[in-house]
Amino acid sequence: MPTGPALLTDRYELTMVAAALADGTAERDCVFEVFARRLPHGRRYGVLAGTGRLLEVLPSFRFTDEDLAALREQGLTDSRLLDWLAGFRFSGDVDGYAEGELFFPGSPVLTVRASFAEGVLLETLVLSVLNHDSAIASAAARMVSAACERPCIEMGSRRTHEEAAVAAARAAHLVGFAATSNLEAGRRYGVPTTGTSAHAFTLLHDDEAAAFRAQVAALGVGTTLLVDTYDVDQGIRTAIEVAGPELGAIRLDSGDLPTLATHARELLDSLGATGTRIIVTSDLDEYAIAGLMAAPVDGYGVGTALVTGSGAPTVGMVYKLVERDGVPVAKRSLGKPSVGGRKSAVRRHDASGTATAEVVSNEPVLPRDGDRPLVVELVRGGELCARATPREALAAARVHHERARGAMPAEAFALSRGDCAIETLTA
Amino acid sequence: MPTGPALLTDRYELTMVAAALADGTAERDCVFEVFARRLPHGRRYGVLAGTGRLLEVLPSFRFTDEDLAALREQGLTDSRLLDWLAGFRFSGDVDGYAEGELFFPGSPVLTVRASFAEGVLLETLVLSVLNHDSAIASAAARMVSAACERPCIEMGSRRTHEEAAVAAARAAHLVGFAATSNLEAGRRYGVPTTGTSAHAFTLLHDDEAAAFRAQVAALGVGTTLLVDTYDVDQGIRTAIEVAGPELGAIRLDSGDLPTLATHARELLDSLGATGTRIIVTSDLDEYAIAGLMAAPVDGYGVGTALVTGSGAPTVGMVYKLVERDGVPVAKRSLGKPSVGGRKSAVRRHDASGTATAEVVSNEPVLPRDGDRPLVVELVRGGELCARATPREALAAARVHHERARGAMPAEAFALSRGDCAIETLTA
Repeated sequence: MPTGPALLTDRYELTMVAAALADGTAERDCVFEVFARRLPHGRRYGVLAGTGRLLEVLPSFRFTDEDLAALREQGLTDSRLLDWLAGFRFSGDVDGYAEGELFFPGSPVLTVRASFAEGVLLETLVLSVLNHDSAIASAAARMVSAACERPCIEMGSRRTHEEAAVAAARAAHLVGFAATSNLEAGRRYGVPTTGTSAHAFTLLHDDEAAAFRAQVAALGVGTTLLVDTYDVDQGIRTAIEVAGPELGAIRLDSGDLPTLATHARELLDSLGATGTRIIVTSDLDEYAIAGLMAAPVDGYGVGTALVTGSGAPTVGMVYKLVERDGVPVAKRSLGKPSVGGRKSAVRRHDASGTATAEVVSNEPVLPRDGDRPLVVELVRGGELCARATPREALAAARVHHERARGAMPAEAFALSRGDCAIETLTA
Repeated sequence: MPTGPALLTDRYELTMVAAALADGTAERDCVFEVFARRLPHGRRYGVLAGTGRLLEVLPSFRFTDEDLAALREQGLTDSRLLDWLAGFRFSGDVDGYAEGELFFPGSPVLTVRASFAEGVLLETLVLSVLNHDSAIASAAARMVSAACERPCIEMGSRRTHEEAAVAAARAAHLVGFAATSNLEAGRRYGVPTTGTSAHAFTLLHDDEAAAFRAQVAALGVGTTLLVDTYDVDQGIRTAIEVAGPELGAIRLDSGDLPTLATHARELLDSLGATGTRIIVTSDLDEYAIAGLMAAPVDGYGVGTALVTGSGAPTVGMVYKLVERDGVPVAKRSLGKPSVGGRKSAVRRHDASGTATAEVVSNEPVLPRDGDRPLVVELVRGGELCARATPREALAAARVHHERARGAMPAEAFALSRGDCAIETLTA
């Protein structure tokens, strides 16, 4: 889409700015905090993702003449507002958890310090990016755990909005997915891309053997042949006849996968194709992946469940004003508690280095042995603190995520519904 | 995002093109069909949305030099493929249901006739757009039904990917949502935008009265005041003190809404504010909306449930090769049936004009009295059949949707899980 990010914003952010400009409160020093009140579905941890994407677009969050004309057309004609927007450039500070970090209820994953007007203006974009990307990363991380060391491949682009697909591929790679089908994610973020063929390619040809010959000729014997268009047994035999026992992999996309994979392995072995891998797809989620643990499967292609957050397509992060002119503030709405005041946060670990608690406090936390501070500086005076390319930022987030996940207690990775893996202390 | 749509594509589409170019099958005449095998969650109908967005981007689906360089970097170096992509411009035909039409399992909502290479290349983008937008529209339509004549407002941008948010606002408006919070949806599609203030605006001020005064001064007494930051009763009293009984509306965003709305109505009436409307928000979905039917509510703001498809964030549409060189083809994978051959489709109605069946056939359907043909021409020889602006296309889809929905039997609008509202006949 050819437009900048400024109008990817809820109208009420602008009407609030207009009213605050009029009554002189727009310049009050404010602190906004992003956090989730709970984890969805009895999940045991969440994964923060999207921070890097947010920092990519923040510098271009400006209102062009065309943007302002569009606002006027929508009835936002207050000239004080429009003048202010014309000059707007975010000049505040942003702190937050490093991208890829785990989060828990109340974790202050992003904190924006700015004038009210500047801070409130970012709410919609911040939440869109973090809620989406964190939902995908949080689901994907469970799939990676369930797959143990077997590679997971993201192939859900066809099941989500075309731009969300790129972000989903990025988020999945962040938490350990090996590759994606999405070419744009390869371009923007350097995520390795993979893919060979669909059933249509077999149906295009006069018979399966012709399709396999064409694919092997074009992509080499290391390719993955999709063998379930007609009869799986015959498909496997044909695949090995055409490609020889050096065939890279077969893909199974239907049927009862544990049984089918076991059978396919036996058949491949009997044909001498002992090195040919078995890739399975077909509506996998973390539970189906776990259910294939005992099956001779070499990789998982995950689509729908990944891009829809496996039942939790958003993580419910909110962007709340917690401090105004140095005074903690919080609403008292029923059932939606907030804690006022800016926060500091550390992850507490026991002597073996295993995480034991998330400590979130209005006061600087006195660090104990094994405490790891969670909040890092991201933006100062409107300027990004680190100049990383999108690819570099993703690579760093991958490393950070792996480290943070490695310190979690084993029970964090149970797929069943349960309590958070560690407790959040407000010490 | 500054890139064109061509790389919003799964890698396997391109490897299939490469292999088909190499073995001479790339130019075979093909028919690809988009359909859903089932409706999610016992829904009784689905709503097709996204066709207009697809037609917006189709003309720009070209591979630029920069795109080709990105493909090379990803290892797609086959020069025959890259040369072909450099010259690619879709030159085939597209037929489909009019946007806004209802669909059922097997409804051929989009049909692409082209060479294999041209047709397969569109798969990912077509499915991304239709699966996302139709998921939102299908959920939103149920909310509109549940709300009866009361207006629904889309305000879910903060809970979904920032670009998906724009498409979601469009899809919601298509099926009858009155307005959106999303400013970009206002710009691109002319969707009316609304919004006034969040809790942050109240917290910014020294007290609630100051916040309300500022808002009324800036936005007029017709505005909507959010009254539940502290105590709802006091909030309502303060709102009327500040704005007078001509206040446009109050918004309730927490608590037990049926009880609270009834109480708020009584209080407003007692204060003489008999014309002040009550808008409710707070995690509404179609069931919560239905549960408020007896409450004195004047409008619903819907966020999370809308943009996540209310439990069905994708509708499972697939893009299948159904004909090759005039011969029907279909895979025989277990549990994933396809019917080969290009289809025609009509909606059958009884003498009273109520829909009774979806007739989908490989032969042209002999029209009976009350049959309405469902498939219209969208693209011929790569050229759009109708030149509509994005706003015009959306407006037309709204009209079409309302007409199609009006012909459904009443049981279609039950919220409970059940069978499809009408049967699909393959006559």
